[in-house]
Amino acid sequence: MKFHIMTLFPQIIQAYMNESIMKRAEEKGNISYKAWNIRDYADNKHKKVDDYPYGGGAGMVMTPQPIMSCYNAIIDELQSEPEFEGYKVKPKVIYLSPKGKMFNNDMAISLSKEESLVFLCGHYEGVDQRIIELIIDEEISIGDYVLTGGELPALVLIDSISRHVKGVLGDEESLDEESFTNGLLEYPQYTRPEVFMDKEVPKVLLSGHHKNINTWRKLESVKLTIKRRPDLFDYKSLDEADKKLLTKYNIVDK
Amino acid sequence: MKFHIMTLFPQIIQAYMNESIMKRAEEKGNISYKAWNIRDYADNKHKKVDDYPYGGGAGMVMTPQPIMSCYNAIIDELQSEPEFEGYKVKPKVIYLSPKGKMFNNDMAISLSKEESLVFLCGHYEGVDQRIIELIIDEEISIGDYVLTGGELPALVLIDSISRHVKGVLGDEESLDEESFTNGLLEYPQYTRPEVFMDKEVPKVLLSGHHKNINTWRKLESVKLTIKRRPDLFDYKSLDEADKKLLTKYNIVDK
Repeated sequence: MKFHIMTLFPQIIQAYMNESIMKRAEEKGNISYKAWNIRDYADNKHKKVDDYPYGGGAGMVMTPQPIMSCYNAIIDELQSEPEFEGYKVKPKVIYLSPKGKMFNNDMAISLSKEESLVFLCGHYEGVDQRIIELIIDEEISIGDYVLTGGELPALVLIDSISRHVKGVLGDEESLDEESFTNGLLEYPQYTRPEVFMDKEVPKVLLSGHHKNINTWRKLESVKLTIKRRPDLFDYKSLDEADKKLLTKYNIVDK
Repeated sequence: MKFHIMTLFPQIIQAYMNESIMKRAEEKGNISYKAWNIRDYADNKHKKVDDYPYGGGAGMVMTPQPIMSCYNAIIDELQSEPEFEGYKVKPKVIYLSPKGKMFNNDMAISLSKEESLVFLCGHYEGVDQRIIELIIDEEISIGDYVLTGGELPALVLIDSISRHVKGVLGDEESLDEESFTNGLLEYPQYTRPEVFMDKEVPKVLLSGHHKNINTWRKLESVKLTIKRRPDLFDYKSLDEADKKLLTKYNIVDK
């Protein structure tokens, strides 16, 4: 998976990609990335990338020319790779915006199957609408809040998508048992010591009895999901054994 | 506003805070931050901060001791400030987790009124449940997706909250007219040139007729919100003039 990020702050992208799992994934060759500085592609003398909005109002809007030229440079670079000779390259281009479709775990899985992804990070009051119409395939939001730029959202997508790229997660990480992969929030986790500040690890987790441990974890997951995120809980999708289990423990009876 | 971030990757926090609006806000004294390396507080020889989960399963869990000691060091530092003499300091402590309450713009506004905030960034399979019970006031999620750690979510909160701290946004930014502040997605923005790659700016925006411009923008906001995020659109909360406007343009008639 190759990520191309168009941004006014390439250092933000580079700093995150130089840490932890992202760095290891790049070193192993599972992912690669390139941060493109939009300002380098401004064809005016002062390298200006924004201007006042037509119709008035506060804030500045990113002008279309530098973004378009930056995008063309990315396409040229992709097109120059020998494997694409004779083919027209058209990577999926994503604009990070609070106006976009809400990002979630299913989208991360689906996007992880692309060969390459191009991200456009906006700043100020966003980008000229025409650049969205000309090059953007999808507008994606990471949540209902406003940020100073698209860099954190782009990194959120890159991190979340990369986890689903083969080889990225090592032995000490895991994909199976986490929040959302089974539609439920994750059960509480405990590690050593057995007693910390007078608080004990639940006895069942020390029992070595795998069936009881699994039951406890499933019940904790369900209880937490019903309490915190009832919108995620789908009783109908449970299998018969799980429905019986929940009835037995009086957790849900609809 | 002072942010304290407990993390295994303080460089990620520092790199983001050194850029753009965050850096300027810190230089102006509107916000400040300190990234605390949890590993520095591990009292074992190898500075180990994680261990296998009780009950089995993939992944590692962050042990409670280093986090607790790091937290105590933060409280000690806050407590040593002269303004708190005679008072017991208890900042709000937030754990970034996909199991948490969903972050949104209203929470950003509300949290921006705190004097200081402490963030705990998890890694691997999360932190020992007892540390959550001992020090955490709120578990917050930035969205329904899984990330390798809590650093990006912490930065999302810091960025989004800081925008509501007085003096952080300068003249070239704006808070009023953005997505969510009026419950609607923002209208499309245009800037120079008037024609870009054969695409023209909508004529109304060049008219100088403020009432018509406002009407166009309102209608575009409503249309986009109904199309992309019907869950955000609340017809009943509109005033009578706006309801009439929508009826006139046949946009909604319920």
